[in-house]
Amino acid sequence: MSNSIGKIFKLTTFGESHGAAIGGIIDGCPAGLAINTANIQQDLNRRKPGQSKIVTQRKEPDKVAFLSGIFEGKTTGTPIGFIIKNTNQKSKDYSEIKDTFRPSHADFTYTKKYGLRDYRGGGRSSARETANWIVAGGIAKQLLKTIKIKAFTTSVGKITLNKSFDQLDFSNIESNAVRCPDTETATAMIEYIKAIKKQGDTVGGTISCVVKNVPIGFGEPIFDKLQARLGHAMMSINAVKGFEYGSGFEGTKHKGSEHNDAFNSDGSTKTNNSGGIQGGISNGMDIYFKVAFKPVATLLQKYDTIDKDGKEVTIQGKGRHDPCVVPRAVPVVEALTAMVLADFYLLHKTNAL
Amino acid sequence: MSNSIGKIFKLTTFGESHGAAIGGIIDGCPAGLAINTANIQQDLNRRKPGQSKIVTQRKEPDKVAFLSGIFEGKTTGTPIGFIIKNTNQKSKDYSEIKDTFRPSHADFTYTKKYGLRDYRGGGRSSARETANWIVAGGIAKQLLKTIKIKAFTTSVGKITLNKSFDQLDFSNIESNAVRCPDTETATAMIEYIKAIKKQGDTVGGTISCVVKNVPIGFGEPIFDKLQARLGHAMMSINAVKGFEYGSGFEGTKHKGSEHNDAFNSDGSTKTNNSGGIQGGISNGMDIYFKVAFKPVATLLQKYDTIDKDGKEVTIQGKGRHDPCVVPRAVPVVEALTAMVLADFYLLHKTNAL
Amino acid sequence: MSNSIGKIFKLTTFGESHGAAIGGIIDGCPAGLAINTANIQQDLNRRKPGQSKIVTQRKEPDKVAFLSGIFEGKTTGTPIGFIIKNTNQKSKDYSEIKDTFRPSHADFTYTKKYGLRDYRGGGRSSARETANWIVAGGIAKQLLKTIKIKAFTTSVGKITLNKSFDQLDFSNIESNAVRCPDTETATAMIEYIKAIKKQGDTVGGTISCVVKNVPIGFGEPIFDKLQARLGHAMMSINAVKGFEYGSGFEGTKHKGSEHNDAFNSDGSTKTNNSGGIQGGISNGMDIYFKVAFKPVATLLQKYDTIDKDGKEVTIQGKGRHDPCVVPRAVPVVEALTAMVLADFYLLHKTNAL
Amino acid sequence: MSNSIGKIFKLTTFGESHGAAIGGIIDGCPAGLAINTANIQQDLNRRKPGQSKIVTQRKEPDKVAFLSGIFEGKTTGTPIGFIIKNTNQKSKDYSEIKDTFRPSHADFTYTKKYGLRDYRGGGRSSARETANWIVAGGIAKQLLKTIKIKAFTTSVGKITLNKSFDQLDFSNIESNAVRCPDTETATAMIEYIKAIKKQGDTVGGTISCVVKNVPIGFGEPIFDKLQARLGHAMMSINAVKGFEYGSGFEGTKHKGSEHNDAFNSDGSTKTNNSGGIQGGISNGMDIYFKVAFKPVATLLQKYDTIDKDGKEVTIQGKGRHDPCVVPRAVPVVEALTAMVLADFYLLHKTNAL
Repeated sequence: MSNSIGKIFKLTTFGESHGAAIGGIIDGCPAGLAINTANIQQDLNRRKPGQSKIVTQRKEPDKVAFLSGIFEGKTTGTPIGFIIKNTNQKSKDYSEIKDTFRPSHADFTYTKKYGLRDYRGGGRSSARETANWIVAGGIAKQLLKTIKIKAFTTSVGKITLNKSFDQLDFSNIESNAVRCPDTETATAMIEYIKAIKKQGDTVGGTISCVVKNVPIGFGEPIFDKLQARLGHAMMSINAVKGFEYGSGFEGTKHKGSEHNDAFNSDGSTKTNNSGGIQGGISNGMDIYFKVAFKPVATLLQKYDTIDKDGKEVTIQGKGRHDPCVVPRAVPVVEALTAMVLADFYLLHKTNAL
Repeated sequence: MSNSIGKIFKLTTFGESHGAAIGGIIDGCPAGLAINTANIQQDLNRRKPGQSKIVTQRKEPDKVAFLSGIFEGKTTGTPIGFIIKNTNQKSKDYSEIKDTFRPSHADFTYTKKYGLRDYRGGGRSSARETANWIVAGGIAKQLLKTIKIKAFTTSVGKITLNKSFDQLDFSNIESNAVRCPDTETATAMIEYIKAIKKQGDTVGGTISCVVKNVPIGFGEPIFDKLQARLGHAMMSINAVKGFEYGSGFEGTKHKGSEHNDAFNSDGSTKTNNSGGIQGGISNGMDIYFKVAFKPVATLLQKYDTIDKDGKEVTIQGKGRHDPCVVPRAVPVVEALTAMVLADFYLLHKTNAL
Repeated sequence: MSNSIGKIFKLTTFGESHGAAIGGIIDGCPAGLAINTANIQQDLNRRKPGQSKIVTQRKEPDKVAFLSGIFEGKTTGTPIGFIIKNTNQKSKDYSEIKDTFRPSHADFTYTKKYGLRDYRGGGRSSARETANWIVAGGIAKQLLKTIKIKAFTTSVGKITLNKSFDQLDFSNIESNAVRCPDTETATAMIEYIKAIKKQGDTVGGTISCVVKNVPIGFGEPIFDKLQARLGHAMMSINAVKGFEYGSGFEGTKHKGSEHNDAFNSDGSTKTNNSGGIQGGISNGMDIYFKVAFKPVATLLQKYDTIDKDGKEVTIQGKGRHDPCVVPRAVPVVEALTAMVLADFYLLHKTNAL
Repeated sequence: MSNSIGKIFKLTTFGESHGAAIGGIIDGCPAGLAINTANIQQDLNRRKPGQSKIVTQRKEPDKVAFLSGIFEGKTTGTPIGFIIKNTNQKSKDYSEIKDTFRPSHADFTYTKKYGLRDYRGGGRSSARETANWIVAGGIAKQLLKTIKIKAFTTSVGKITLNKSFDQLDFSNIESNAVRCPDTETATAMIEYIKAIKKQGDTVGGTISCVVKNVPIGFGEPIFDKLQARLGHAMMSINAVKGFEYGSGFEGTKHKGSEHNDAFNSDGSTKTNNSGGIQGGISNGMDIYFKVAFKPVATLLQKYDTIDKDGKEVTIQGKGRHDPCVVPRAVPVVEALTAMVLADFYLLHKTNAL
């Protein structure tokens, strides 16, 4: 297993969805940073189950407890240990899924790779892990100060937000349950998720993220290009199937003469197909990228599958699950972005004599 | 800078496009592997400039010399050092581009980040670096033995190969200059690239890659998921703007009931929207993914830009450049895929008691 | 800060001596290992304060709680999170040491490096951290199965055990408070420590460690030689000033003709000046090394020092402290040895095709 | 294998003693550093065979060629690739040692670990590798500017320099072949080595190193303490058996009341038993440490050993070898020290907001 991310600003995590607690250690955060824990809790609440009608109705308070590394309100330079207790581990009957492999879950691969698995609620492969990332991302955001990171929902199923990000009012993002800054599109998305939920089905979607005020020089080519590390982080999120930045897949259809970003005399560019990154290094323009999420694999429907001996079994999906992961994943995208940028912020300090 | 990739099977590289040589060190390759250097040279030739009419007409022999780590035809377990000499460094006049920032190149960001740059032919940011990857990927391929990696061109500009990969005959890939396994589409792509070249323009495209016979269990969640490491590697290629695997961006539009991959009794799945990976771990099905390349930034046209002092200048693009990077990038995609898988092959050995 | 040790079997820790808890995450432990938590607690008890009259009389239960990674008694391959609560954090008056730098402590360097410090009981620089190592070392010992690691006290001040390790009965180590396998020497050491304690003074000493049944092939030259990683680990222990293995410093006085270890026909050697390691790799013979500990810096005497403004102040040392760190450091040496070997055990699996 | 050292300032090396070349890649050196290659060559010459009558009489020019990363005399921030050609690989008859394990060499462990070995002249386990370290250390020294690193011989066999380092005139170090700053002791050492050489025998010794002007704050506890990284580096040198810093093994005999370093009002200390390091972090005082080298294993005598099948064979040692490794190891100790400090210099930049 490999449960660390980052080179200098580094998060290492642990925890199963139904163990005693999840948690992590943030190593490499500079000393002297005043920490606003309320802001971190606020981001945890944005990810929390039960926050609206279109997400899972499970109840988890998701309260983070910091155990070290912060003293009299400031980071000390020592590792920041934290835990989030799991309060929702009911002594449930797992006998049905214990020996069964649910389709498009990690049950099969974990069992084959490790020879055994914690079958309670997805174990380590559960997206509950992402709460840890919110905590570390929250610290990273505070370290980054003037850098602004905004993620938002750009599609749910086929319902797509067809506006470029400078046409959007980001202050609307938190005004609706699906976290889409365009109110009309948001309403359509919410209605669609409700309808899907009624069918016991699920649906995918996309999240876009825009980062403003990134200084020139973040990113460490050749093998830690800024876009590569962002892509790595995003592809680490449960259910993510794709990543693109700047002009992305659409840009492959362009000619170079259309696609190149001409310079203004101050070094900014007239267009931004580059997505704020050239040669793996931030160029001072807005960084933007899009992340693709597949539909949640857990259905509240009856389905056929196999057990560990290859015998066919029929399962009735039940419980409290997300019909669409996208609304709760918005703060997760932001948190990972912040962690990647915090790491490059610190690495950048080592570029100079 | 960060010039290493991999945790156990690890490549570290160096070299500027117009320095004395490029090269690298492969650390962690197990001992006793018989090395077929001709196969590695063959992949280098597939990447080499001048190989066909639709690629740059520069001449570089791209001969690799192994300096260590291979003895009497076999790896010894010690690091494999290699160099590829740069033979095409003509004492050219660089005065025009020396102090100029070409649009959508790394000139601006390298200069700002490092305070100076080797301005000869792109320096470290040149795609010449990918020749090093071919060498390491060639060793990795030989380590992986029965695992088969096939990359091929799936689009050039708007010309797209609209067939799923099991409808394709991979033995056709090398039969045409653009490396598209569908002959008809290949012809259209080649004609289009020729037309674009005549305009002094460039165009983007996509490459798909299919990997067969990957054992179950490759990938190290949470932060070294197989798709995340593949994504990281692909996003490290010059000009890449996006990555998706399995159902990718299209899968976001699906319902879970359509998207889930039902099991056969042997643990294989009836469909493969998962792209051969579940929970970050290979599940034994074919792995497949797609990579987006932007159009090459170097145009053989006149264009306006700025110099290091922000003064506007007009440049006449000249020299020998690729009108489309995709044909030569096909073996690069394969090489990086092989390196990522070789690393997971070795890491997987540490999962067991 | 850098709070991780190991490449595959990897421990990351957190915690200040007077925070809520200390703890860590063990990543990379293979799945399926049956964990005997009682054995781990037993090693924690060997390190625990208050265990005998010659150690600090502080009371800390040092109970470890595992939060993840162990399911139904076995490791699952996922990270093993654990915490040890700090129960002895009395709301003490720290005003005297808060702004004062104690001689030969880390107060001065932490304050200068980080700009601030958690002044309660040494904070992160406290040897309380070593309890975390005992936990990870305990898991490592169980992974290593037949490999036997025995550390013991070989000197306290000038009182030295003058026997080679094959003249010793290791079953005596735990029979006395100072953990010296020679009863007579042990008695002298204990008496000396008691006398030193009465003076409010402290004394240093050495610990030797012998490892039996290490397979041939552990160690990864050039930069992860077995002796280098053991040395790194030992030099990481608070108060350690030196490390030697095999013939050590004494061996520098020998001629090669005396020092070389001649082979038996089975590949074992007639002598073992090499200390079980050749070229950075275990050779199957017993590994042995010695570690030097300086006297504890905290005295129960009056002493002069400076405060943060450079003003001279006089402090009366008080509290419950170890007069000699060596007895409690014996299990710490073992734990780190186990961690280093566990890592090499796993890395060694990647040496083969 | 693991052929990298350092986290930010990072050297990766390759090469066998009798391959085409050895070499390395220095990654992470900041841009804009003016490189004096003559100074680096000078340190290579201090390590070079054939430099005096008391070292091996082999001839190797040891000319380093830089292949990348330096442009117009300055580092560019990109990796610095370099090679040193092996010119002394005579097509010698290796049949005698090919299948034989020389005592106290790495022949046995390399063969057992890797299944095969490059038997020509020690292959990868040869101390020829240390020439690579001199190159990287030479760059590091130039990066460290005002920090002064001085290593020197403190003992050869039982002949010991019994002066503390502030009684020595470092300008004498290079005035004699054994690199001992005390002329009288140097003469005795040289005579002793000559006598040993006549016997076809070898002898060990110790090297001390003093580092002046290290800023406060270098070192990254808990697991990258300055002394631990120095110890790791020194224990990586071929033939090294021990490491101690500050009061070292002798300090274990002291009482705390004698050993503690009282502060002056400016934060410097009246004594320096700490060796310039507290809590793993430099405190601004001189750093000093000592390294133990065993006698060279290659004897020019007849000796008994075994071949790969365990059969006893008698070998007549021959060739050109060092009777004592210490004189040539002095610049190696300095180079590794410089690399460790350069890494901490850069890491220290990430400690601040």
